[in-house]
Amino acid sequence: MMRHTSRSVEALVEQFAKLPTIGRKTAQRLASYVLKMPREEVALLAKALLDAKDKVRECSICFNITDADPCPICSSTRRDRSMICVVEESNDVLAIERTNEYNGLYHVLGGAISPLDGIGPDELKVRELVSRLVGQSDTPADRVAEPSQSQQTAVTEIILAMNPNVEGDTTSYYLSQLLAPFNIRVTRIARGLPIGGDLEYADEATLSRAFEGRLSL
Amino acid sequence: MMRHTSRSVEALVEQFAKLPTIGRKTAQRLASYVLKMPREEVALLAKALLDAKDKVRECSICFNITDADPCPICSSTRRDRSMICVVEESNDVLAIERTNEYNGLYHVLGGAISPLDGIGPDELKVRELVSRLVGQSDTPADRVAEPSQSQQTAVTEIILAMNPNVEGDTTSYYLSQLLAPFNIRVTRIARGLPIGGDLEYADEATLSRAFEGRLSL
Repeated sequence: MMRHTSRSVEALVEQFAKLPTIGRKTAQRLASYVLKMPREEVALLAKALLDAKDKVRECSICFNITDADPCPICSSTRRDRSMICVVEESNDVLAIERTNEYNGLYHVLGGAISPLDGIGPDELKVRELVSRLVGQSDTPADRVAEPSQSQQTAVTEIILAMNPNVEGDTTSYYLSQLLAPFNIRVTRIARGLPIGGDLEYADEATLSRAFEGRLSL
Repeated sequence: MMRHTSRSVEALVEQFAKLPTIGRKTAQRLASYVLKMPREEVALLAKALLDAKDKVRECSICFNITDADPCPICSSTRRDRSMICVVEESNDVLAIERTNEYNGLYHVLGGAISPLDGIGPDELKVRELVSRLVGQSDTPADRVAEPSQSQQTAVTEIILAMNPNVEGDTTSYYLSQLLAPFNIRVTRIARGLPIGGDLEYADEATLSRAFEGRLSL
């Protein structure tokens, strides 16, 4: 049996098949498609892959992924600096931005508390969230676009936007307790979200309603 | 609305979303995965993409995709040179090889006759198939690994393995008429294949049975 008459194509199929949601037959189909693509398009894809790996880093303030530090949201002069929306992953920021409903800042925890998986607050950017509240004037002036503004504007609300599952609830509860002494309004987005689902894949309307119906904790 | 906080990631999502079967949400998911992959793995994928484009060509004998011309099957000394299996696409060769049922040569037409799409015999490698039969000794001696063998072994059977649909049937009928004067056995793989399906995605058992049950035309 001849596995493939082209080792190059076989190698490409193998690489594609390593990606999530892509089985061997889809990988084969993608490889066939690549063979028919203009070379410039293939080069763009190859470059985009390496760029994503080489240029993307975490924002040192909110820990969202970004090409420049601080990220465009943290350095924007048009965002409402009195609100921080706390999310698990950077894809959640993207989903919330698509609603056009929220104009505040973000904080990306990097996951949710999950004792069974050995993930506690120390494995997440919890300490960094707290230090944004206690030490806003600790932030080096050269790291934000509008240092005077960021030092003047106190955070008055923290919106918890965890995934609607056990880990998300645990994280919300933990943070609401942790943030209680700060005398800041702590809210959680409403349960318009389908339970057990993934925030990242919620539709804009559901996410918008969830923002509108947020409740004080 | 901020489309994405990282232009690099956004670019990668756009490139992924151009591929078939990959929607925007899957593209987003793949991009997130790439960010977490070791850089060497990403580099391998990028290289595999460019290699597939740069190194893969058509075999000048059977028109299957290959890195070296002629392809490993055409230049193999272990294949039965008395049989040529005619298929529409190179992926069909791969599917047939997986059955371990066939040890002859191949001929990849590059499609099927489809008058509605403006595809006639001239758009396919039909002339090239005929010339493999009439002019086996016309093949330059340096282009096959075993020139003496290939010149000695006459093709005694052509197996038509088109997709089981209207275009495939049309192509099979056309080729059976065209090849009649050659006094070569022309067979078609049996209709164990589910009608309307794609040969490329048939399971090994079905494809094996189709080979066993082939009928003279």
